[in-house]
Amino acid sequence: MFDLYHFSLSPFCRKVRVALAEKKLSFELISDSMCAPSEALLEMNPAGTLPVLVDATDTQNDKPAIIIHSGAIIEYLEEVYPEHPLLRGSPIDRAEARRLAAWFDELFHAHVTRDLLTEKIEKRLSGSGAPDMNCVRWALDNIRGHMDYLSYLVTERRWLAGDHFTIADITAAAHLSVLDYLGDIAWIHYPDAKDWYARIKSRPSFRTLLSDQIPGMPPPRHYKDLDF
Amino acid sequence: MFDLYHFSLSPFCRKVRVALAEKKLSFELISDSMCAPSEALLEMNPAGTLPVLVDATDTQNDKPAIIIHSGAIIEYLEEVYPEHPLLRGSPIDRAEARRLAAWFDELFHAHVTRDLLTEKIEKRLSGSGAPDMNCVRWALDNIRGHMDYLSYLVTERRWLAGDHFTIADITAAAHLSVLDYLGDIAWIHYPDAKDWYARIKSRPSFRTLLSDQIPGMPPPRHYKDLDF
Repeated sequence: MFDLYHFSLSPFCRKVRVALAEKKLSFELISDSMCAPSEALLEMNPAGTLPVLVDATDTQNDKPAIIIHSGAIIEYLEEVYPEHPLLRGSPIDRAEARRLAAWFDELFHAHVTRDLLTEKIEKRLSGSGAPDMNCVRWALDNIRGHMDYLSYLVTERRWLAGDHFTIADITAAAHLSVLDYLGDIAWIHYPDAKDWYARIKSRPSFRTLLSDQIPGMPPPRHYKDLDF
Repeated sequence: MFDLYHFSLSPFCRKVRVALAEKKLSFELISDSMCAPSEALLEMNPAGTLPVLVDATDTQNDKPAIIIHSGAIIEYLEEVYPEHPLLRGSPIDRAEARRLAAWFDELFHAHVTRDLLTEKIEKRLSGSGAPDMNCVRWALDNIRGHMDYLSYLVTERRWLAGDHFTIADITAAAHLSVLDYLGDIAWIHYPDAKDWYARIKSRPSFRTLLSDQIPGMPPPRHYKDLDF
């Protein structure tokens, strides 16, 4: 049994939620804040970053294991719970899945997700002023290039990193799901990427993300529709 | 035999150089540019990011393996060449090493290394204007908090992540070595961190980094001294 400290619209937390569900591991979600971390979170992780996974079944010195950082959590889960693997195939195939996960967690995050989350969500939740529309426009402009790359990959391959559903798909879908919650993806321009995302939306592991609701900020109607 | 496409002052490339040397794998360094990637680099990696590792001993469809992204390269090396491991101990210990590697590659990079590299090195090499001194000062101010955290860790533990030298030490030292090349670390304030860095500097794997020279930008005299 796991506890996952998370923020519902963080792509890094969403990635771990989907990974846990894909591995059929049962977990409890504990909401926390990126802007104002709780005492409990700071005690486990003085940096206050999310997600944090507490694994009560794995103890060292009689304390439950505390795993910090989405990438470290995924590798930990792969090592300790190898059933339903999220990295598959040869070491080269696995490196390709890790490369693409890093693409979305680093490049896509720096170009798109980070600024949209800060300007549209964090500022609103923390009451720290209006969004900087130059930042928002810059991030929105950056979506196209990445969606084109994603479209290219899913026409060449069954899943992002090859024949298997992997952490690359989970990571990309986690980031896109946040943008989709904000209504920022014009799916009509990207039919191949839309088909890939529809396949992911229909997986049971993705369902709980689709029922997330930030109070006062409902998602657009298509967000939770499997046929969007 | 490996080819490593790199830029000498990139902390991500330095990390892979040290990892290859720690694993006693022989490799050839091919210098490339982050600002103006070569045709050869773009053909392998259209994003133009460094490092890129070519493993001629591992082929798929008769082509040598091309591994992109420092984190993916490290995990690949651990899987294919498990001798001289850079991740050690229990899955919890390994998660701690990955957490700290991510701390330096993400937080420390965002707060310190990225701006100093851009403002002090890339702008100079590409001739794109004077450094933005506000950026430089902000990054320099951020060093202290991270050095305090590093000092705390190395007084509690033999190596950053615990009893063993791991990828956490390699990653932290790779970032610090770039700042040290720029003369930006006031070691006198951090005796415990200095002792830890001196132990790393004396490892044979670290030696080639200490003889790096950017034309027209020599490092300070203490940079290569083991007794600094």
